[in-house]
Amino acid sequence: MIRLKVPATTANLGSGFDTLGMALNLYNIFTVTEILPKGEYRSEVWGEGVDILKDAGKNMLVTSYIKACDEWKVEPKGFAFESCNAVPLNRGLGSSSTAVVAGVVLANILSGKNFPESELLRVMTKIEGHPDNVVPCYIGGMTVSCWDGESLRYVKLPSLPENLNVIAAVPDFEVRTEEARRILPDSVPFRDAVFNVSHASILCAAWAMGRWDLLRVGMEDRLHQIYRASLFPGTTGEKFLNEIANHPDCVATAISGSGPTMIAIVHGKAAKLSEAMCRIFTEGGASSHFFVLNCTESGTVAE
Amino acid sequence: MIRLKVPATTANLGSGFDTLGMALNLYNIFTVTEILPKGEYRSEVWGEGVDILKDAGKNMLVTSYIKACDEWKVEPKGFAFESCNAVPLNRGLGSSSTAVVAGVVLANILSGKNFPESELLRVMTKIEGHPDNVVPCYIGGMTVSCWDGESLRYVKLPSLPENLNVIAAVPDFEVRTEEARRILPDSVPFRDAVFNVSHASILCAAWAMGRWDLLRVGMEDRLHQIYRASLFPGTTGEKFLNEIANHPDCVATAISGSGPTMIAIVHGKAAKLSEAMCRIFTEGGASSHFFVLNCTESGTVAE
Repeated sequence: MIRLKVPATTANLGSGFDTLGMALNLYNIFTVTEILPKGEYRSEVWGEGVDILKDAGKNMLVTSYIKACDEWKVEPKGFAFESCNAVPLNRGLGSSSTAVVAGVVLANILSGKNFPESELLRVMTKIEGHPDNVVPCYIGGMTVSCWDGESLRYVKLPSLPENLNVIAAVPDFEVRTEEARRILPDSVPFRDAVFNVSHASILCAAWAMGRWDLLRVGMEDRLHQIYRASLFPGTTGEKFLNEIANHPDCVATAISGSGPTMIAIVHGKAAKLSEAMCRIFTEGGASSHFFVLNCTESGTVAE
Repeated sequence: MIRLKVPATTANLGSGFDTLGMALNLYNIFTVTEILPKGEYRSEVWGEGVDILKDAGKNMLVTSYIKACDEWKVEPKGFAFESCNAVPLNRGLGSSSTAVVAGVVLANILSGKNFPESELLRVMTKIEGHPDNVVPCYIGGMTVSCWDGESLRYVKLPSLPENLNVIAAVPDFEVRTEEARRILPDSVPFRDAVFNVSHASILCAAWAMGRWDLLRVGMEDRLHQIYRASLFPGTTGEKFLNEIANHPDCVATAISGSGPTMIAIVHGKAAKLSEAMCRIFTEGGASSHFFVLNCTESGTVAE
């Protein structure tokens, strides 16, 4: 029996488009209970996605497992697995990355290849198409990643201190990643590009040196969030980027990945800010729920 | 007598346009020898710029001193000073920043105001118009800065290790900063903006965590160097960005500030790479000289 505890992740953190990501202490737990003949897959799913994830063969854990086996030219096995999901699906909290990471880790374990971390991450990124969720999902903490389609470079930064919590406010509507990509412009003003270069740089430097007073400025973005905010109902997106950013308890806020989950970093008590975030969704006609989370250092753990 | 030892700086470092800068152990030394009546300035200049910097009242040290006094609403004094210049003028090594920094530091000393570092840097940046030279020039080391026209944020990263040298190859032609700004496009492809966000982020994270193996990738740029390379004679600019980057001794290369000086980071021995850099200038019809420098931790020192 192989059990994998795989964390949710929040990508981008405002300025760090396709680059920054952080692992959160909210987990999907995948358990392989039985090895089956080649090509045979069975699953039992609990929690998030229970109504959608019925076909084991189409589960991203299985398709990613097979892609990793193809990549390494090893014969894929069949298996039965249980998936206990706490990470909401298609909400921008890296649920698909949990399945990709689990599939690749399983291929590594079941093939006995014992590849190094860098090779596992390369294959995970190739399957996912971008590094900013799979890298923190696998190695934990806050990560900076750079992927050119072939080579992956990444650096793990120190973890967010425990007194800084991450609120994730999750609405009941979806934003498809493809739609969130399509709405981005083909070109941007030079000054906006420079704005994000300087803000992402300050964010990385501040994070590395423990200058938490610079999180708010460092997470400011002009490249993607204003476009993506328009995919939220009514003026919900704009309200988040303006009102929540100026809430007295809010250290910094961002769209989580391609949305629609919004995150806010909060110093200590999170009740008022969580409520304010969910109220904005309610005013936009969407119900929502929230998690109060921490950055988790440990990444994916095999038990 | 007040003596200020003020370092040269190299800004941008490829990906970090208007953001990153590093202090180098090449100095201008400014010495105030006598306090004079208000409005009276006398200078003696040695070394770089001796033919140009004849009018003491137009010297950037004096104009910056007066601007800083205006900013702080203190009465400017007159003074006589000596300027012993080792930093080449208008070559992209921050010579104007040495004068701005010295002028503001003098205003702080002569007024007896004793402002904190952050206020001195704010005024220096306001006078210079961008933070990426004045910040490392004043505080030393490698710095990440973010300036919105009013507020300055900055983080100092650990110094470059001593076994990594910085070659600065300085040609005998000038690139005016205004021209180097004008040649930049008004808008850039979204993917190029993201390219620089991820590479500058990796560079900052790698620098902070001592991952010197990532300098080359982290310094890669698509926002400004290809445009500015066209201001170099013939194909000199392109040759630098291609041939020097692939030289076996080159860790990473970049245009220093807005050019025309080229820098290359080199591991240990610098002779072959320095020669290769100067040869490219020679082939382009320009003579040149080079310095082999280190990152200096100490910044501006008053003696």
